[in-house]
Amino acid sequence: MPHSPQEKKRVLTRVRRIRGQAEALERALEDGVECAAVLQQIAAIRGAVNGLMSEVMEAHIREEFGQPVASEAERAARVHEMSLLVRSYLK
Amino acid sequence: MPHSPQEKKRVLTRVRRIRGQAEALERALEDGVECAAVLQQIAAIRGAVNGLMSEVMEAHIREEFGQPVASEAERAARVHEMSLLVRSYLK
Amino acid sequence: MPHSPQEKKRVLTRVRRIRGQAEALERALEDGVECAAVLQQIAAIRGAVNGLMSEVMEAHIREEFGQPVASEAERAARVHEMSLLVRSYLK
Amino acid sequence: MPHSPQEKKRVLTRVRRIRGQAEALERALEDGVECAAVLQQIAAIRGAVNGLMSEVMEAHIREEFGQPVASEAERAARVHEMSLLVRSYLK
Repeated sequence: MPHSPQEKKRVLTRVRRIRGQAEALERALEDGVECAAVLQQIAAIRGAVNGLMSEVMEAHIREEFGQPVASEAERAARVHEMSLLVRSYLK
Repeated sequence: MPHSPQEKKRVLTRVRRIRGQAEALERALEDGVECAAVLQQIAAIRGAVNGLMSEVMEAHIREEFGQPVASEAERAARVHEMSLLVRSYLK
Repeated sequence: MPHSPQEKKRVLTRVRRIRGQAEALERALEDGVECAAVLQQIAAIRGAVNGLMSEVMEAHIREEFGQPVASEAERAARVHEMSLLVRSYLK
Repeated sequence: MPHSPQEKKRVLTRVRRIRGQAEALERALEDGVECAAVLQQIAAIRGAVNGLMSEVMEAHIREEFGQPVASEAERAARVHEMSLLVRSYLK
């Protein structure tokens, strides 16, 4: 996973923010906040999760294709793995 | 927001599960788990957030349209509000 | 489906636009247009389809909840059907 | 865009299917088909567009990273471009 300390810090910051959003939503529900505000908080979490997915996918692209490969077989394996990830998560 | 105790409990359970997933992802990242597994955890959180959005929207439909309205003006206001919510969150 | 002539016309206009976008994309592919432009056209179609989904869902909300119901049983049936539609298409 | 004849044919087949789905939806709307069936057809088009997006993104990954690059600068440029595409379309 993200190898550079900066990338790892960026991704962890995003995950902690999502956890914080979930905790805030929990409090809002316990306080009986009205529906439109709850839906807005959920949409904000959905946006944050999409942003996290994108950040991790980009880090993986840099990792997999940012350096020369040792062999053609390794190149083909990396391309194949990346295609599978895109197919799974491009929803 | 969800008025019936059962609905409120169901929604809160979903939110707590999402918080738990975020905490688990945080640990996985700190442990340097490899990328495909991280992306899979993120996709699981995305699915859980979509499920939460749907649950809250359904509760709101029951709340707004499950009982008679006091006036035609109130009916029109509820229909308008619901349309705006669908337009915002049907992504 | 959308009963008012205006709603029907609006929805049909959206569908014809999507068909036109698909035809334009077909020509672009035959002309060998480069990838980033093709992806942009596909994203535009995706946005148009989401807009169409929202327009039809809103028309359905107006149709189902915009008039008084004949019985409590009918009210419950309409609420249930709407919940199922939201659950299916709120992705 | 997809350079190999097979890839180009696969992508064009998907686009033509989407055009056909849009034409079928147009007829269904003109015939006044009821809402749940219309929403189902729209969801099918949405799924087909997501599949098309994924197919084109995968073809682009093969194209950009399936062969050796001429220089480190070119490698960095390809990684950067791919990251931007993922950020734009991973919704």
